[in-house]
Amino acid sequence: MNETIVCVVGNVATQPVYRELAAGPSARFRLAVTSRYWDREKSAWTDGHTNFFTVWANRQLAVNVMASVEVGQPVVVQGRLKVRTEVRDGQQQWASADIDAAAIGHDLARGTAAFQRAARPETQPSATRPEPNWETPRPADDRTEAGTGQERHQQAAVPVMVT
Amino acid sequence: MNETIVCVVGNVATQPVYRELAAGPSARFRLAVTSRYWDREKSAWTDGHTNFFTVWANRQLAVNVMASVEVGQPVVVQGRLKVRTEVRDGQQQWASADIDAAAIGHDLARGTAAFQRAARPETQPSATRPEPNWETPRPADDRTEAGTGQERHQQAAVPVMVT
Amino acid sequence: MNETIVCVVGNVATQPVYRELAAGPSARFRLAVTSRYWDREKSAWTDGHTNFFTVWANRQLAVNVMASVEVGQPVVVQGRLKVRTEVRDGQQQWASADIDAAAIGHDLARGTAAFQRAARPETQPSATRPEPNWETPRPADDRTEAGTGQERHQQAAVPVMVT
Amino acid sequence: MNETIVCVVGNVATQPVYRELAAGPSARFRLAVTSRYWDREKSAWTDGHTNFFTVWANRQLAVNVMASVEVGQPVVVQGRLKVRTEVRDGQQQWASADIDAAAIGHDLARGTAAFQRAARPETQPSATRPEPNWETPRPADDRTEAGTGQERHQQAAVPVMVT
Repeated sequence: MNETIVCVVGNVATQPVYRELAAGPSARFRLAVTSRYWDREKSAWTDGHTNFFTVWANRQLAVNVMASVEVGQPVVVQGRLKVRTEVRDGQQQWASADIDAAAIGHDLARGTAAFQRAARPETQPSATRPEPNWETPRPADDRTEAGTGQERHQQAAVPVMVT
Repeated sequence: MNETIVCVVGNVATQPVYRELAAGPSARFRLAVTSRYWDREKSAWTDGHTNFFTVWANRQLAVNVMASVEVGQPVVVQGRLKVRTEVRDGQQQWASADIDAAAIGHDLARGTAAFQRAARPETQPSATRPEPNWETPRPADDRTEAGTGQERHQQAAVPVMVT
Repeated sequence: MNETIVCVVGNVATQPVYRELAAGPSARFRLAVTSRYWDREKSAWTDGHTNFFTVWANRQLAVNVMASVEVGQPVVVQGRLKVRTEVRDGQQQWASADIDAAAIGHDLARGTAAFQRAARPETQPSATRPEPNWETPRPADDRTEAGTGQERHQQAAVPVMVT
Repeated sequence: MNETIVCVVGNVATQPVYRELAAGPSARFRLAVTSRYWDREKSAWTDGHTNFFTVWANRQLAVNVMASVEVGQPVVVQGRLKVRTEVRDGQQQWASADIDAAAIGHDLARGTAAFQRAARPETQPSATRPEPNWETPRPADDRTEAGTGQERHQQAAVPVMVT
């Protein structure tokens, strides 16, 4: 209730980073969202402001992001916006803008995609831990079990793309 | 201004249909969006109401949808909602709910995707016909320029849809 | 989860109607949302398509809508979109487009508003029945206690909520 | 195109501040948006994370906000999100989260409002300067013509509140 849901279309600005946390797999990347507007004087579409977000993916979404998303790709992301504010020097307030992603997909306006449904059903882990806990201190209980991550990674990703 | 922008996550309910219109390539499919809620009495996530939309894709997005999207796949769609109302029997008002898609992507929460950027830049046709005209009577001026459509179509990927 | 949240800015097209249901107060009105676009040939903003919605308010929101909203006023509405689809003649699908409102406010871009916080906090009834049940068959258990509704309306801000 | 549109429901955290800029009237206030979630262990709705935004209103909306909105009031705001990122100490990125409001209204879920349409039509100034320029350096060309601002303020604001 009263959550700030956003849906943004932009480009992946950094290679996704994977972590195995106590709460399960987690992946994150930076996303650049550039608005475009019609410049009446130039009679042309022009780039406007660029919003940068840190996109967080959890559980199966994190695993699939690692197997599918690369820096530079165009994606559409839906999720909850979390602005973290801090007072600096007791005067000015700064904030970081995170999106806790519910869904991420390659933008088919920019290219084609060969999709393969995950063998492991999302519904099963979802049954036991159904609700992504936004408030969980993610970086805190970082375990970085690279081995586990890799295995799961290879399990999940068998995309074959022939064009 | 004052547009009704929606962002929905659901399953493709019908195989995408392709048309070559005077305004360029067009594709459409039905999308089922089922809300899920936490049933406190059962202590379990339960299916709620299902919204059905007709999703419309234009130009490069239409071509790439035909090359990438199949019935049953999970997708995230962002676009403008268009509710078309009609008076039936002079009494009750019915409506169809369309989404003029700006972006469509496979939901990576459900599987993996191999993405390939389109060879043909979207920006070029975008320069000459930049703004999807929501009001264009789509089915009306259907010319089915099969030749042009086919070429572009085969370039992009595979499905042949003649209507 | 997977709900279709919309936020629309439009004009109240019909005088709000009040009903006292088993689940509590309910109000509804029709809303007209007209998109506007920049017509480059005319070099002017022009009206585009108009979406019509039936907006539903429940509980305290319903009571306050009756005390505050009149036909013709500009409002901003946030809520869950519910498209109800029906097969007509076994062939074509029609739908009504409802919004189950979470928040409704007069659009201050169009005028001024004097706001008065409800005496009874929404949080209290919210504690016992916190979640608006989208699936409740609203028209079904309609009791239409017109008298009560009228009285409550004229009182304008001293809603008594007994269920 | 590709703008980040948000719709948030929260409480006004600071008294709105008015400025008369070269581009016209401008008002801003801080908004606190607290998400609430169902805590299954406690079986109660609980406060989650609070997002803080700086909400900017322009032209007639700015004037009407000054005449209508006070600190502590619940409002619904629709507009474009603008995250401004800065590199601090060449290492960490911070950002401020602004919303360029298209519509602002008092949340009728929390109280009642007496609305009065502005005498001055928004459409007229809208014809000459129709599109809010997001990129305009707002604080730069600050003229603070308090006199003009006051006048316009008094002109616009004639809220009559009878309850």
